[in-house]
Amino acid sequence: MSTAERIWTAALLVIGDEILSGRTQDKNVAQVATWLNVQGIRLAEVRVVGDREEAIVEAVNALRARNDYLFTTGGIGPTHDDITVDAVAAALGVGVVIHPEARAILERYYETRGGLNEARLRMARVPDGAELIPNRMSGAPGIRCGNVFLMAGVPSITAGMLDALTGTLEGGLPVLSETIGSWVAESEIADLLRQTESAHEGCAIGSYPFFREGRVGANFVVRAVDPAVLSACAEALLTGLRAMGREAVPGGI
Amino acid sequence: MSTAERIWTAALLVIGDEILSGRTQDKNVAQVATWLNVQGIRLAEVRVVGDREEAIVEAVNALRARNDYLFTTGGIGPTHDDITVDAVAAALGVGVVIHPEARAILERYYETRGGLNEARLRMARVPDGAELIPNRMSGAPGIRCGNVFLMAGVPSITAGMLDALTGTLEGGLPVLSETIGSWVAESEIADLLRQTESAHEGCAIGSYPFFREGRVGANFVVRAVDPAVLSACAEALLTGLRAMGREAVPGGI
Repeated sequence: MSTAERIWTAALLVIGDEILSGRTQDKNVAQVATWLNVQGIRLAEVRVVGDREEAIVEAVNALRARNDYLFTTGGIGPTHDDITVDAVAAALGVGVVIHPEARAILERYYETRGGLNEARLRMARVPDGAELIPNRMSGAPGIRCGNVFLMAGVPSITAGMLDALTGTLEGGLPVLSETIGSWVAESEIADLLRQTESAHEGCAIGSYPFFREGRVGANFVVRAVDPAVLSACAEALLTGLRAMGREAVPGGI
Repeated sequence: MSTAERIWTAALLVIGDEILSGRTQDKNVAQVATWLNVQGIRLAEVRVVGDREEAIVEAVNALRARNDYLFTTGGIGPTHDDITVDAVAAALGVGVVIHPEARAILERYYETRGGLNEARLRMARVPDGAELIPNRMSGAPGIRCGNVFLMAGVPSITAGMLDALTGTLEGGLPVLSETIGSWVAESEIADLLRQTESAHEGCAIGSYPFFREGRVGANFVVRAVDPAVLSACAEALLTGLRAMGREAVPGGI
């Protein structure tokens, strides 16, 4: 692998008062992060904003400008607090139109569910020029506008939309990782971590301490794009821990 | 309540590669949001960035400028990837110093745990002029620099630091909420939601759909600062749902 390998990045914008109020525990950050990595795209930053057009517009424009892709979750449903489509259209400087295919999808979906009313038709509204992201779960599709992808807030529906996008986005090499667990206070082996990371260019070592069964321990996550470099770095850390008389468990504790 | 009531806002900056890689499910957004609300402070925005000084500096300066308070979680431990103190000091334009009280706390804490080594002493480093936030859990304190509060990433330790800050920050009135659950597709009662919200100034109604036991339903969360307005709005929504022949459950489903 060349060190000049292009790195593809994405940002995620989570939209919803329910996250900022603490009512709802977000699940989409971890889900989107994990999915992106498999696509060879790195999640570079996340923002969470409430259901306010001004906040959404600002975040969309900041994040799409400096990342290859921007994903949003939330605010594309049928109710008055679902304002993502309007805000993204405003950010992109385009109008909002009814997408004919989205309308047809919703007509079919609601045929046996009480019919397409005005609120449901809101879910066919898209920024002008957008394409649809299929949604097998609940009818209303996600929306793609260039490098901006609008997805549902309900994690199971988001998952279906991500699944529909799998393999369709250009990316680079995925970041690989190996975890080594140890019953050691991270502060006792900080030098080893720093030196091992420095000695293996292209590797990053994260240290994640825990308290369990009355003992302190930590998992050390080595990350790299190149599998040979990753393996060498993880091996060096394992050897280093054992040389210090520490129990070290490949795969983590 | 006057409509000119001052609203106090906070931002949260979550720092850590482990959140952006999807390895770790963040718990601090919901925890900090819930705690802030009790203090009469609204969580206005959240950002998640990796362990990169430039990204932390940018976010700290953007967020502290436009909120009354900024909280950070993560990156204040003893290892090489813990760079929050240096990044916040850079953002504030001050140096980094060893805080004598923090050093004394760490000396006592590690007296029976192998002594204070160089890595552990890193946790006594603070931006110049900072105060400490007590940490009953694990020795190393949190750090307060003006309106910026640096807290641990491990949620149980963060919780202890929040507890130590309880009642010490100036805030306004907390946002109150009432939840009404209904076995109804939100798209069938979107008009009722919109009209009920419009008729009660100072109220916001959020709609959170779910699929459970093979049926669609939704919880409607009414939020307001004034308890009388909140109660009137929730009652109007309950009455409206029942007038449409819908089962409506105070407290939510």
